[in-house]
Amino acid sequence: MTDDPTPIPADGRPHVVVVGAGFGGLACAKTLARAPGGGGVRVTVIDRNNYHLFVPLLYQVATAALSPADIATPIRSILSRYPNVDVILGAVEGVDTAARRVRLAGGRAVPYDRLVLATGSVYSYFGHDDWPHVAPALKTVENARHIRTRLLSALEEAEMCDDADRRAALMTVVIVGGGPTGVEMAGAVAELTRFTLARDFRRIDPRAARVLLVEAGPRILSAFPEHLAAYARRKLEALGVTVMTGQAVERIDATGVTVGGRAIPAATVVWGAGVAASPAGRWLGVDTDRAGRIRVAPDLSVPGVPGVYALGDTAAAADDAGKPLPGLAQVAKQQGEHLGRALALNLTAGTAPAPFRFRNRGNTAIIGRNAAIFDFGHRTLKGWFAWVLWAIVHVYLLVGGEKRLSVTLRWLWRYATYERGARLITESPPSDVAEVTTQDNSRRRA
Amino acid sequence: MTDDPTPIPADGRPHVVVVGAGFGGLACAKTLARAPGGGGVRVTVIDRNNYHLFVPLLYQVATAALSPADIATPIRSILSRYPNVDVILGAVEGVDTAARRVRLAGGRAVPYDRLVLATGSVYSYFGHDDWPHVAPALKTVENARHIRTRLLSALEEAEMCDDADRRAALMTVVIVGGGPTGVEMAGAVAELTRFTLARDFRRIDPRAARVLLVEAGPRILSAFPEHLAAYARRKLEALGVTVMTGQAVERIDATGVTVGGRAIPAATVVWGAGVAASPAGRWLGVDTDRAGRIRVAPDLSVPGVPGVYALGDTAAAADDAGKPLPGLAQVAKQQGEHLGRALALNLTAGTAPAPFRFRNRGNTAIIGRNAAIFDFGHRTLKGWFAWVLWAIVHVYLLVGGEKRLSVTLRWLWRYATYERGARLITESPPSDVAEVTTQDNSRRRA
Repeated sequence: MTDDPTPIPADGRPHVVVVGAGFGGLACAKTLARAPGGGGVRVTVIDRNNYHLFVPLLYQVATAALSPADIATPIRSILSRYPNVDVILGAVEGVDTAARRVRLAGGRAVPYDRLVLATGSVYSYFGHDDWPHVAPALKTVENARHIRTRLLSALEEAEMCDDADRRAALMTVVIVGGGPTGVEMAGAVAELTRFTLARDFRRIDPRAARVLLVEAGPRILSAFPEHLAAYARRKLEALGVTVMTGQAVERIDATGVTVGGRAIPAATVVWGAGVAASPAGRWLGVDTDRAGRIRVAPDLSVPGVPGVYALGDTAAAADDAGKPLPGLAQVAKQQGEHLGRALALNLTAGTAPAPFRFRNRGNTAIIGRNAAIFDFGHRTLKGWFAWVLWAIVHVYLLVGGEKRLSVTLRWLWRYATYERGARLITESPPSDVAEVTTQDNSRRRA
Repeated sequence: MTDDPTPIPADGRPHVVVVGAGFGGLACAKTLARAPGGGGVRVTVIDRNNYHLFVPLLYQVATAALSPADIATPIRSILSRYPNVDVILGAVEGVDTAARRVRLAGGRAVPYDRLVLATGSVYSYFGHDDWPHVAPALKTVENARHIRTRLLSALEEAEMCDDADRRAALMTVVIVGGGPTGVEMAGAVAELTRFTLARDFRRIDPRAARVLLVEAGPRILSAFPEHLAAYARRKLEALGVTVMTGQAVERIDATGVTVGGRAIPAATVVWGAGVAASPAGRWLGVDTDRAGRIRVAPDLSVPGVPGVYALGDTAAAADDAGKPLPGLAQVAKQQGEHLGRALALNLTAGTAPAPFRFRNRGNTAIIGRNAAIFDFGHRTLKGWFAWVLWAIVHVYLLVGGEKRLSVTLRWLWRYATYERGARLITESPPSDVAEVTTQDNSRRRA
């Protein structure tokens, strides 16, 4: 290691490097730091952002209900109480598995004894390289802010527009992908135009805005039981959303989308369809599944690469029945906690890491005011009570008391008044989604 | 008017156009809408942003204490309850005074019977066209976000930096201008590094960050009585701020600043020095003072341009003693309310507009936790009580109940924990300040 110009100085303690401060990476780092004997382990968390982002609520930033700071917490402040945990703001460019070093942009190298890859997933545009620019996805703060600006600017332009066709395009929002993100975004856009903005314009009626949810599969919310998906569809349609299933998007450009051979002029298109793993598999040069996820052993180690582990959306893991684990925050979080405990024991007492077992805490999606669904496997829940439970669970999962208080307050205020406080048109260019590696494991929620 | 391609359709009612939705413009529009007989007047508010920005608290966005949405309110939602008030999101490019029309970017023209110019001020860099890029000013949401990103990124870079000189530059913040904005910014940066970030880094000690406040004049806070300015200086120095008075900045570039022939390497430079009026005077082609402000008659009308009025930072007005009115939010607000009442009476009853008289409500600045100053003219106030009063006044002045609750909550939280919730490094390029016209009149506070 002496040939490296700027190695991170090491001490006698074993060093665990965690790449990605999403749900999985943070859980792993905190568990390691708190574990009995964990103080004897040095932990370094690397992320390209200085904050942990609560991605499941990003659609509320895009629809002006919350501010980025409501759902993003500085990684340093989350981990400041653990003296053996270090944070590096940096972009990983590769892993030198033979020398056990992580290469960062800028030439720095971080040596490790154990490496945990928790780099999450990105949206996939199925090879359409021009689509990210016209149809941003809900994955980064910058993109959410950009979608908000695009939505609100289109209505402002419509208010001043004398051409009926152009006005119709400006008042059309197309959401691609009928998974939980697409459903929640469609519901939130519909509520924004139907209620919040209803009386704010003089020439256009925002309630007449068209909101289309386009899903290529036979139904929306394919991960949920059929009766919950049917309930969600009814609720969306009651809000005025046009749900189009069994129809793939063939073209997206600045004028709109083409679905089933029919052109739909639209000023705002939001992408929520395909998901692919971050490039961690390429860093290692190992076998991945079709979505780019690293095939891991039951203990989450990467076969053939000693000392390296992967979890969350970065890893292709299976449950006891051999069924692939879904891309949910709770999976990443449980894997992170498991790996934190296992690595602490391994490094301080030499114990072999135990296999990971997933405990399903239930899957949920929200459609809008008073309407959400829960699937606990053995039972399901929908309607007002599910909606209250959704809100409580999400406030509880936020990091930090200030955020919990602030989001609770905003939601109560919005429930009472229909107002949305973050209706700001500010410039923030869309990040190039194809290049973005979101280092968190938060595709879906707990 | 028939040769205009896209005139705004008029009805029989007289039409008042207000340019700028800052403190002055909004006060004018609301007073007009509420005035007895005001319903007989049509009002159009034009702004280049879709929100009213509470500029006096922008330094708290730049120092990660508040989010932009905490201090920005959609203009449409403020005015939605007044059916005779219309809002246009657009940039004014000029005024055709003969035809009584405002020209907007994009070719649209808005005819008026009375025009109120409330376009505020911009920061002046005294002819240094390259300085805005290296020393952004606290005037727009984008700039505040950019300053926040720069401040936080510099510390992240310092944490990874092995070169002592470079590390010192990264940990140096220079604030140019010892007015209230500069003082508040210096105090907030010092508290951010001394308290909030104190335990978050492992290799650097954020408490060792240098914060320099550079003022060309003989003392800071020249608009305040000398003993209050001396108190503020003592408080700043107790926080660790180096206050340099009587020293002008000679050079600013990406490496730092030069003051009194001495180069000070600094990664973050914030501008808060010169103020110039927005280009409204040029639109009219009328006489302005040295700062570009339109010289108005006692009734705020622009001599020689029938039907046109100016207020706030756009206007050079004087008090009864002939002393120029300061660039304070309270001046703009009082002028807006006065003009709203006067124009409603004028247009519905033919009454001649009365002269405006300023009632001084007191001038204030905050240095930090438990330290603020008030100058009411006949008496002054400083210390803890002034600080509480400052907080109450500013919460009261925010627009909307949600913002009041949210900001109160955040301030109480910060007071108890020293935490700052908005410590996000997100990309937002600095707007070119030299080109920006901030359409509000909020240089200083009520």
